[in-house]
Amino acid sequence: MGTYHKSAAILVIGNEILSGRTREANAYLAAQKLFDRGCKLGEIAVVPDVQDAIVSALKRLRKKSDAVITSGGIGPTHDDITMDAIAKSFHVSVLEHAETLELMAKHYGDKKINEGRRRMARLPNGAEPILCEQSICPGAHIKNVYVLAGVPYIFESQLESILPDFGDDNHPFIRHEIDVELPESTFSKELESIQNRFQEVEIGSYPRMCGHKPCGKICLSSQDSDALKLAVRDVTLMLENL
Amino acid sequence: MGTYHKSAAILVIGNEILSGRTREANAYLAAQKLFDRGCKLGEIAVVPDVQDAIVSALKRLRKKSDAVITSGGIGPTHDDITMDAIAKSFHVSVLEHAETLELMAKHYGDKKINEGRRRMARLPNGAEPILCEQSICPGAHIKNVYVLAGVPYIFESQLESILPDFGDDNHPFIRHEIDVELPESTFSKELESIQNRFQEVEIGSYPRMCGHKPCGKICLSSQDSDALKLAVRDVTLMLENL
Repeated sequence: MGTYHKSAAILVIGNEILSGRTREANAYLAAQKLFDRGCKLGEIAVVPDVQDAIVSALKRLRKKSDAVITSGGIGPTHDDITMDAIAKSFHVSVLEHAETLELMAKHYGDKKINEGRRRMARLPNGAEPILCEQSICPGAHIKNVYVLAGVPYIFESQLESILPDFGDDNHPFIRHEIDVELPESTFSKELESIQNRFQEVEIGSYPRMCGHKPCGKICLSSQDSDALKLAVRDVTLMLENL
Repeated sequence: MGTYHKSAAILVIGNEILSGRTREANAYLAAQKLFDRGCKLGEIAVVPDVQDAIVSALKRLRKKSDAVITSGGIGPTHDDITMDAIAKSFHVSVLEHAETLELMAKHYGDKKINEGRRRMARLPNGAEPILCEQSICPGAHIKNVYVLAGVPYIFESQLESILPDFGDDNHPFIRHEIDVELPESTFSKELESIQNRFQEVEIGSYPRMCGHKPCGKICLSSQDSDALKLAVRDVTLMLENL
């Protein structure tokens, strides 16, 4: 287990999210996948297609996480500046990647490698391409940063390629949810005392309304399945005795 | 227009988003509302229910934005630590808010103000309560920070209360989208030259697949409706002439 990234952050690059045009989907998918592999996601940040914003977010997130996954900004248009920003963060240049150009040449036929497509063969110097089934244009892996596409079906496919670096099936986080038909305030004190007894279990309470009545879910998660079972038992008993 | 917040950041506080349990909805809603009022959203950050994470994110986002809207962590349970974290950021204490307690007493009937509910009457010293139609428990407004609930229907209702601080209908961002049935690489160079001519218009290209064919949308937005019209005309002409 020693070689996996134990913590991660996700950096979403895209004006379309910040302007409310598009509902974020990639970080949501990655969050689930990381959880299932036992990798702790510590932050999601969404920044605009602006070089300084990307560079400073990346610097900050790399410091606090074992690895950073970025999403967006690696296409052929003027707003696709992620590869350049990543390169700048690492003080390296961006180079056309010979193998990628060759793959593209095969894929499109030589004469079709126009300027736009050549742009998508550019990787920060020292980066490895991240290949996937859904696109001939690669993501990039450099040190602890994984640069993926923003288009959801390509992001998903590239994510599958890199997930083995983030853990396996042996130590997943496990989640257990308990339905509640009471307002939170009636059990908040008791729930806190259970949380205090089980430090290795994360306990959250998520209220909502069921018609006109308060209800919700108590959500417990942990990598320690024994502790999880005990905590679930205690929460269940606590609710029965209210 | 001088008294509105012209830029904003959103800080989402919630383990449930980072664990992939819940798809983020509040920042998505706020992003749309801010866009419609002409307020520039510069960043969305999602951090866990951890005091240091909240305090440091808030400090960072306050520096780069006119205002920060937070979502989540203001309920009665142990994982609801946002009010304390905000207070810590401002070096003030958290106090029971007398008016809020009075409103709660009326709402629930005196004897029902249990410890959990009293917790929800706590505001950072100096904060004003943010009232809304959907909940008796307030958000908090202190300096340039607006602390809202995480439960979506309450967040939405509290957001409506504060939106007048973020602009009006006079200077909204306006968006225009143009359907494209070509791969981005065929027009990326031309699109860049249009972007260079219209600095006050933000132009993005969002590709996807329509069946087996590449397609997508070119998305233009601006507060300057004349510039927007001209840029839309140029993009349309450019596509016709490809």
